[in-house]
Amino acid sequence: MVATEPLTPERIVRLEDDAVVVLDQRRLPDEEVELRLTTVEDVAEAIRSLAVRGAPAIGITAAYAYALAAQRGEELDAAYSTLVTARPTAVNLRWALDALRLEPSAERAQRLHAEEVDRCVRMATHGADLFVPRSRPLTHCNAGALATGGYGTALGVVRAAWERGLVETVWVGETRPLLQGGRLTAWELEQLGIPHAVIADSAAASLMAHGEVDCVVVGADRIVANGDTANKIGTYALAVLAHHHSVPLYVVAPTSTVDHATSTGAGIPIEQRQGDEVTARFPAHNPAFDVTPSALVTAIVTEEGVHRPPYETSLPR
Amino acid sequence: MVATEPLTPERIVRLEDDAVVVLDQRRLPDEEVELRLTTVEDVAEAIRSLAVRGAPAIGITAAYAYALAAQRGEELDAAYSTLVTARPTAVNLRWALDALRLEPSAERAQRLHAEEVDRCVRMATHGADLFVPRSRPLTHCNAGALATGGYGTALGVVRAAWERGLVETVWVGETRPLLQGGRLTAWELEQLGIPHAVIADSAAASLMAHGEVDCVVVGADRIVANGDTANKIGTYALAVLAHHHSVPLYVVAPTSTVDHATSTGAGIPIEQRQGDEVTARFPAHNPAFDVTPSALVTAIVTEEGVHRPPYETSLPR
Repeated sequence: MVATEPLTPERIVRLEDDAVVVLDQRRLPDEEVELRLTTVEDVAEAIRSLAVRGAPAIGITAAYAYALAAQRGEELDAAYSTLVTARPTAVNLRWALDALRLEPSAERAQRLHAEEVDRCVRMATHGADLFVPRSRPLTHCNAGALATGGYGTALGVVRAAWERGLVETVWVGETRPLLQGGRLTAWELEQLGIPHAVIADSAAASLMAHGEVDCVVVGADRIVANGDTANKIGTYALAVLAHHHSVPLYVVAPTSTVDHATSTGAGIPIEQRQGDEVTARFPAHNPAFDVTPSALVTAIVTEEGVHRPPYETSLPR
Repeated sequence: MVATEPLTPERIVRLEDDAVVVLDQRRLPDEEVELRLTTVEDVAEAIRSLAVRGAPAIGITAAYAYALAAQRGEELDAAYSTLVTARPTAVNLRWALDALRLEPSAERAQRLHAEEVDRCVRMATHGADLFVPRSRPLTHCNAGALATGGYGTALGVVRAAWERGLVETVWVGETRPLLQGGRLTAWELEQLGIPHAVIADSAAASLMAHGEVDCVVVGADRIVANGDTANKIGTYALAVLAHHHSVPLYVVAPTSTVDHATSTGAGIPIEQRQGDEVTARFPAHNPAFDVTPSALVTAIVTEEGVHRPPYETSLPR
């Protein structure tokens, strides 16, 4: 375990008098560098460029930017529009901005942040109940404190299960092309002192075939009414593999991630990112997310509890 | 299409008077650098370190090294032992060295190389018969000219199908951790002028879900008597995903890859490589290969034809 200051919510994102300050996640784990974002456009660009990423975290960051614009008497419809379009797949961005539009203040943005962290702690408590002793969960991307502004969704569940003595080791899918697993999740687990091993994403199948994965636990960027779930590219692959090997797949996300206005996963826009994230030299195809049909999801964990199929009726409104 | 000299067998590996000369595959596509390997230990290290890789290519390279040792009157049992243990999973290494032990000469090694290339051309002809018009095959790792000392196995099939006008584009799994797909296969396809796009390995599932993959075509490091197939880590994942989406999976390999002495995949040793190939900073787990059960293999293509289950009886002896 590396000695370091705790990964508090304020270290990940906070509002200061004249800026939104974020920990630049592109430079982790090599360097801990803060970015001072002084305009709405700066914040939108930090979200687009993944300096701050993770569905709950980008919602919180956008809320702080909107509060800053409100303090300064800026044109708020323009601020809303710039921020809400920064990334298309997560629904939390719109959810957070809608909350700020009703109450455009720093106090509201800070409360939203605190509530989001509180929801993480509650979903961790529910999710840890799903773990058996000596569990070897596999997670993908980063659904930890960094992704949520504090504590984490899927990784929060792993953390709570570890604190109950239920975790033997954590398999961390490195999550190409941007390595959020191999860079960010491994870094968080190192700080927490939780045993882990990073794997190439394509190694998950053979681990499952050898009985070395007890559950797959992932976050979500958007969950629609029937339970179909958009998350980092590769999640759907893990869901099919888990199903084939009779390994449970748990999706962990706050209710702010649930989009009741969209009925199935076919209605979720999938962000296509630049091919040079995959290869600088050759043509590439680089979808940032995929959609896992709810039939492959064993349970969805929110701050309100553990929800089982059929999700149309079990997901909280 | 990049203008360049053709990727002839001699460019990939050849025997000179005092050295085995190989194209250093670790430095592609950035640089084309040749290594002059003057001792058996040099050759073994080039195989271990993946300067030369691909089951047929390492067999050919080891054969040249053995021939060189024979010319010099070196102790041949020691040379055999050093070379055969350089990597554990591929069976071609043993097969090629056994051929040289019976006839330890440069002429035999050159004939073995020429025969291996000729087998590739024959399996490409058989395999291309499996392609439908406007096919969008997905391949993994590099099973091209570089892997085989000329022409290629899985990529040879793609090339022959392209020459018949049957290929629309090729999906290239980048193949973490060492990116043999994103570096070597994309480079070969660029030279051949065949349209292609590199993907993160974890993006294959969503492409299949959207009906954008018509077949998966891969090479093999070892095929055992029942058809179970060891190949680059991630092949088994693709096999499960292809099965789930009713996409055919074709394994293309010369008969020198077939190990009739091993009855099932459980008997294949899987090379575990250094974790720092995955991540330099955190603990990692890095198996180089996985085993695909023959039940997930639609057909196996060798130079003798297209073989269907049950492989116990259909695979050539």
